[in-house]
Amino acid sequence: MIKNILENVRQISPLVHNITNYVTVNDCANILLACGASPIMADDIEEVEEITAICSATNINIGTLNKRTIESMKKAAEKASLLKHPLVLDPVGAGASKLRTDTAVSLMENYRFTVIRGNISEIKTLALGEGKTKGVDADIADVVTEDNIEEVVEFAKQLSEKTDAIIGITGAIDIVADSRKAYCIYNGTPMMSKVTGTGCQLSALIGAFVAANPERALNATASAVAAMGICGEIAEENLSENDGNIALRNGIIDAIYNLDTCEMERRIKYVER
Amino acid sequence: MIKNILENVRQISPLVHNITNYVTVNDCANILLACGASPIMADDIEEVEEITAICSATNINIGTLNKRTIESMKKAAEKASLLKHPLVLDPVGAGASKLRTDTAVSLMENYRFTVIRGNISEIKTLALGEGKTKGVDADIADVVTEDNIEEVVEFAKQLSEKTDAIIGITGAIDIVADSRKAYCIYNGTPMMSKVTGTGCQLSALIGAFVAANPERALNATASAVAAMGICGEIAEENLSENDGNIALRNGIIDAIYNLDTCEMERRIKYVER
Amino acid sequence: MIKNILENVRQISPLVHNITNYVTVNDCANILLACGASPIMADDIEEVEEITAICSATNINIGTLNKRTIESMKKAAEKASLLKHPLVLDPVGAGASKLRTDTAVSLMENYRFTVIRGNISEIKTLALGEGKTKGVDADIADVVTEDNIEEVVEFAKQLSEKTDAIIGITGAIDIVADSRKAYCIYNGTPMMSKVTGTGCQLSALIGAFVAANPERALNATASAVAAMGICGEIAEENLSENDGNIALRNGIIDAIYNLDTCEMERRIKYVER
Repeated sequence: MIKNILENVRQISPLVHNITNYVTVNDCANILLACGASPIMADDIEEVEEITAICSATNINIGTLNKRTIESMKKAAEKASLLKHPLVLDPVGAGASKLRTDTAVSLMENYRFTVIRGNISEIKTLALGEGKTKGVDADIADVVTEDNIEEVVEFAKQLSEKTDAIIGITGAIDIVADSRKAYCIYNGTPMMSKVTGTGCQLSALIGAFVAANPERALNATASAVAAMGICGEIAEENLSENDGNIALRNGIIDAIYNLDTCEMERRIKYVER
Repeated sequence: MIKNILENVRQISPLVHNITNYVTVNDCANILLACGASPIMADDIEEVEEITAICSATNINIGTLNKRTIESMKKAAEKASLLKHPLVLDPVGAGASKLRTDTAVSLMENYRFTVIRGNISEIKTLALGEGKTKGVDADIADVVTEDNIEEVVEFAKQLSEKTDAIIGITGAIDIVADSRKAYCIYNGTPMMSKVTGTGCQLSALIGAFVAANPERALNATASAVAAMGICGEIAEENLSENDGNIALRNGIIDAIYNLDTCEMERRIKYVER
Repeated sequence: MIKNILENVRQISPLVHNITNYVTVNDCANILLACGASPIMADDIEEVEEITAICSATNINIGTLNKRTIESMKKAAEKASLLKHPLVLDPVGAGASKLRTDTAVSLMENYRFTVIRGNISEIKTLALGEGKTKGVDADIADVVTEDNIEEVVEFAKQLSEKTDAIIGITGAIDIVADSRKAYCIYNGTPMMSKVTGTGCQLSALIGAFVAANPERALNATASAVAAMGICGEIAEENLSENDGNIALRNGIIDAIYNLDTCEMERRIKYVER
């Protein structure tokens, strides 16, 4: 699944345009650099089309959306669609407010995203056009487990069919699906939920991975998801006694910096469904 | 004083709404996760009421205020007041510009804040409706020392009486007061002033601590202040030879992650006045 | 060249006003604290004049410019010019969009900047009024090498003559020039390009160094550039096996925190031209 994916990112070094939130934007920029890509953040409506045009992928994250940036997101999505550039949507907090739900749903319905990645409650909100999110985490009732995984995989495939986007549902078990195939990925560690923005960072990473592997977007997305989980594991293993969630945050990005395909192959745990 | 306070935060895991500055917002999110709470940052006027409504506390920080977000702050404060949710004000840089002073004073006068926390010069500005701040640090002439602490405690109690808010004045000595009682807290280390946003982080922490202990808001606020100081001490003790202010920043949040009540009891230094 | 420069920063502790991007703003604040200065970030048009007036230097960075903040940048630049405060321009991404190019060129043409610092492609864009930037890195074709350094030095001196600003062109070799003299600085390490915002941090640092050494602005700028490179070297030397670009970022700021003139003198590598 992962063959050459990471190598291509490091070799091609895609430039990724991010319209993202101000909470985790620094980590998104640094994780893009860590994987071998280059970041550019630009959200003014007067420049987003030009910036998208010089980039190889566009990553739209609604984490701290506002009226001004929503218009920029639409403009950038339109341009990226037109240019057939890989386009990623991270519907942070969809379901937590009407503004977030409406914005995410409207983006999904009006532009062709290559990948949509969120937690199960955000993705359900997109599918249903409504929902209820506790911050940016999945509702406990909506957690993906071995018991409901078949159902969630089916849901993801259907949503992919409907949207023509690869669907990434991340949590304790990660699911990456197009309309025909799903990868269920078992990497990662619970402590990653104690770091703000691991999801945002992953969406940026997906932008880079797909940009460097446009013909293999499903595998590229699954590889980015696996890479993030693997680097969470590595970072946790490297923690010392006094370390906490900041050490984990730092360690994840540093592990992406040092990651290679051999290490990924040793650690990756996934099932095709 | 601190009995069960931190345990309650870790157990209840309150969701805290933050309208805060883009300088230190990532640290605020991570320190909330470190203490066991969950952060959500949202500042568009169309969603702040909904976000506040699903949260257990609202933290308003004027560090990089602008015309757009000031309106959102008011809307969120109004909603939180209505719902009787704990509401924290961090008047960053009040006194440094008319916009900051007016905004902070107007917020304080129009909404019932549960806690107002700043350095002595910011809090004096609020009390006086004017002032002169050097950045976000207290004027040297306004430092709280053993010589003037009685006077400052009296000032804090009076301001609490006037505003019905718990007043937190933080610096070399921290004072947390309501109209009848004050805790003077002697934890912390001077090097913390070399880390941007320890005050912002503390205000976010106060939001979480009060949300999880609504009936004991004074003790919860004082516990958060003590926790921050204690974790500054721990982080400084853990520094290696080449470390500087970034290592301290990381260490403080990691220490919050690892903190327990036993450690707090061993280290806390305070006097009731 | 560097005599007393850093000591003055630590002793005078200048307050630096930053209108900067939300990607690297936290690092800019912490590096200012690390060098002994104090940061204040403020970008609302209603307060920027007042904030600039209480500061000793103003640093304008267009990294995530928007219509609102562009007006604030102009207002702050005007006030700083009027007060003859040191004024720094960081034209991040100039050449990547018309908005960036026009804003940077307009700022340069309408206000007297003390220092303009960017990579070679950004600075060329300013000089030409047009350009083509790959994100925030210099085009490969535009890299400064021993083969073209004389040409670039001449270009920098001419731009300084034209703008009356000190010109800082940073990359593998750094050039700091006024109309008569240039320092070519050979500190730093390639890995610094894997950290987002080393340029932004450097511009903030320049603001502090010039504010504390207003009569020696050329040497202060060159010293800040050398300090950044030297601290990149120190941080890289201190990396452990699992470290990556985040460890380098942290290490650079911590090295600034611990830097002294002796260490700078031991490590600095420059040629006057």
